[in-house]
Amino acid sequence: MNKSFETLIESLMLLPGIGKRSAERIAFYIINHKDEGLKIGGSIIDAVNKIRNCSICGNITESDICNICADKNRERKTICIVENIQDLLAIENTGIYKGLYHITGGLISPLDKIGPEKLRMEELFHRLSEGVEEVIIALKATTEGEATSHYIIERIKKMGLNLKLTRIAIGIPVGGDIDLTDKLTIINAITNRKEIQ
Amino acid sequence: MNKSFETLIESLMLLPGIGKRSAERIAFYIINHKDEGLKIGGSIIDAVNKIRNCSICGNITESDICNICADKNRERKTICIVENIQDLLAIENTGIYKGLYHITGGLISPLDKIGPEKLRMEELFHRLSEGVEEVIIALKATTEGEATSHYIIERIKKMGLNLKLTRIAIGIPVGGDIDLTDKLTIINAITNRKEIQ
Repeated sequence: MNKSFETLIESLMLLPGIGKRSAERIAFYIINHKDEGLKIGGSIIDAVNKIRNCSICGNITESDICNICADKNRERKTICIVENIQDLLAIENTGIYKGLYHITGGLISPLDKIGPEKLRMEELFHRLSEGVEEVIIALKATTEGEATSHYIIERIKKMGLNLKLTRIAIGIPVGGDIDLTDKLTIINAITNRKEIQ
Repeated sequence: MNKSFETLIESLMLLPGIGKRSAERIAFYIINHKDEGLKIGGSIIDAVNKIRNCSICGNITESDICNICADKNRERKTICIVENIQDLLAIENTGIYKGLYHITGGLISPLDKIGPEKLRMEELFHRLSEGVEEVIIALKATTEGEATSHYIIERIKKMGLNLKLTRIAIGIPVGGDIDLTDKLTIINAITNRKEIQ
């Protein structure tokens, strides 16, 4: 083999979900489709160089402030707290939510030595004094998600702000089999049952 | 979302085996690991710009002639005909073969409008007059592989050269279940059975 080809395979193997076989397949594809290869390589470098994090919410942007934070039509009195950009986009794609976001950039996890100081927490609390009326916590229901939610709730309560604090509902997913659902989810789904109108 | 991020996802989807979900996962990984992203993007562009095909055998190289063709220690009187670089590397990785190669760059396929003129055939026949003693055909046993082998055999016979023409054996793979093997392979394996010494 030759050097730049081996380097290509090795660097492709850095990607998540790409093992040696996939990296080789992709590498062969690239050298057999050079125009597409240049396009892909260029778009990677372009994205790395242009994309940064919104100085307000942490979303990705090519400016200082992201599209959502800059959008005058968004409901600016509600902030939805999410773990990462993927979760933000998943909520955005539904179209149900019109407020702003705040990305924590991770969850509190003592085992992984991730404390609140490693997350975008102070940026969040700083935003809350600027006329926010509702904070929706949309973190996942795991030990780490619970610890992070608990930390946020306690800090907000201590700030003594007059705002509504909510969490997204835990329950059986649409189409989900109840008998295949874990106990905690079923307990939550029953406890938080809604009256039929 | 923003433009360079969307462009990145779209261009990653050009790759084989990468759908929208994988492309998104890779794109997020890249913008969250910018150093690795630059390395990957750079190695793609580097490979595309540096790698070309050996002017003799068609293997990949960064020079005019590939490592194998340039290697004085290879057995230069034997040429093994393979469809593509992947097959060449698979044979090289075994270490069993010490001769030269010739890559056809595809197989004859009338349905896909691929005739011998679209393959590296004339380059092959040109090489045979230069002291070659054996030609090993290592093309896969499909309709297209058979058509290509047949074409090569007929052309070589017409050239009236005094050389040995062989094909790699068809048989049951090591560890393969005989009852799960197709009829043609079993017929070949029995017809070409070897006497136990």
